Amino acid sequence: MQVAPFSPDELTEDGFLGGRLRIAQPRAGYRAAMDPVLLAAACHARPGQSVLELGCGAGVASLCLGCRVPGVALTGLELQPAYAALARENAARNGIAFEVMEGDLSRMPPDLRARSFDHVIANPPYFGASDGTPATDAGRERAQREATPISDWIDAGLKRLKPEGWITIIQQADRLGDLLDGLKSRAGATTILPIAPREGRAARRVIVTARKGAKTPLKLLAPFVLHAEPAHSRDAEDLTNIARAILRDAQILPIER
Amino acid sequence: MQVAPFSPDELTEDGFLGGRLRIAQPRAGYRAAMDPVLLAAACHARPGQSVLELGCGAGVASLCLGCRVPGVALTGLELQPAYAALARENAARNGIAFEVMEGDLSRMPPDLRARSFDHVIANPPYFGASDGTPATDAGRERAQREATPISDWIDAGLKRLKPEGWITIIQQADRLGDLLDGLKSRAGATTILPIAPREGRAARRVIVTARKGAKTPLKLLAPFVLHAEPAHSRDAEDLTNIARAILRDAQILPIER
Repeated sequence: MQVAPFSPDELTEDGFLGGRLRIAQPRAGYRAAMDPVLLAAACHARPGQSVLELGCGAGVASLCLGCRVPGVALTGLELQPAYAALARENAARNGIAFEVMEGDLSRMPPDLRARSFDHVIANPPYFGASDGTPATDAGRERAQREATPISDWIDAGLKRLKPEGWITIIQQADRLGDLLDGLKSRAGATTILPIAPREGRAARRVIVTARKGAKTPLKLLAPFVLHAEPAHSRDAEDLTNIARAILRDAQILPIER
Repeated sequence: MQVAPFSPDELTEDGFLGGRLRIAQPRAGYRAAMDPVLLAAACHARPGQSVLELGCGAGVASLCLGCRVPGVALTGLELQPAYAALARENAARNGIAFEVMEGDLSRMPPDLRARSFDHVIANPPYFGASDGTPATDAGRERAQREATPISDWIDAGLKRLKPEGWITIIQQADRLGDLLDGLKSRAGATTILPIAPREGRAARRVIVTARKGAKTPLKLLAPFVLHAEPAHSRDAEDLTNIARAILRDAQILPIER
């Protein structure tokens, strides 16, 4: 866990949403790419509603949401103090109100435990505790590797939701069973949006949304396809029109709920 | 349960696989459509391998498989004696060897319990015990409504598989959570193939395949799309090329495992 704040030369500044958002991120730590942007795009929060992001890192998902939906009330919970500090700086840098709390979602801070939200969003670590090679950077290792089982993320999220509130999670596609298992019998109206790199390919990610206490049946939606060209081309950005609308023009991801 | 055999005027004869297969089915009972054909197309059994179908009904799925893969050893288990008799008649009518046993998959007949198979296939009932209006026909009601929970189908199937054998199930898409839950920790290399009526639409069915004892991660594949036209046209059969290859020309469904 990186306790000391990042020094300026440890950071880069990157544009998101076609440059609407400027985000400072650690050069060597966990670096946000498309996933938090897609997560924000999948959350249909309206102005005046409250959103809690579990494990907010440098704040990309919440700040993308704040950029698209002015007047949404954003709260983030982050385990690593250096990332929490960075998320606050990024909020200030972009003029977006974002309350960031430090703490562990499996031991929810008491002031958060007393509150409930219209939406919860999360981009939990993608690697199980025993998978693969550890990242050389401790902060990235923490951000990418599951110390807390995914069922605890879902538990924590559902507890913090108002009745009929929505939870939205982005995760590696191969964790779909764990996600559905975590939601089982406590949430309904579950939708699975497969995110595929190209037409006809298996999904790499899934965005799962569900509504607390709902009984509506699960829906497995048509995939969201990121790239238009059949193979990767180095010359041009080959995003599909809908991917470009979301990643560059801060549009909402239309999910049939 | 229909115990007496069907009389000839209770039956129709229908063509499957472009007329390669002639199937007698009850006029008023459970009538097979695309789903058992897709189920057979998703099973990659090779000549000489053994296949058990749980709940084989009038035998459409197994006989489609026998039609595509000569020399496959087909066994079916069916609860309703009248359907089991019909499956035997359909096998004889098409000149395909198909051993049909009567019995309940949750109380597996002893002679089946002593055997194991390379593949298990199943098209379990689509409606939960408490859903919707009962069918007016008792046989259709039994074939469509779940008396046995889906987890029992998966349990029975996994028990009858050889080590590293494959289970293939077609089911309503909204039951995906139950399917993955049933397979959890006992099978791996799970693939989910969404079956969508048209491009861009939510899946109506899923075909889930898994390998007994495997540890390979889950894959969520690109959807298999049935119809080419954006809306239903009455004038022409608007199947996609791949759907036509499978439903009319008895081709295998290419599943990336």
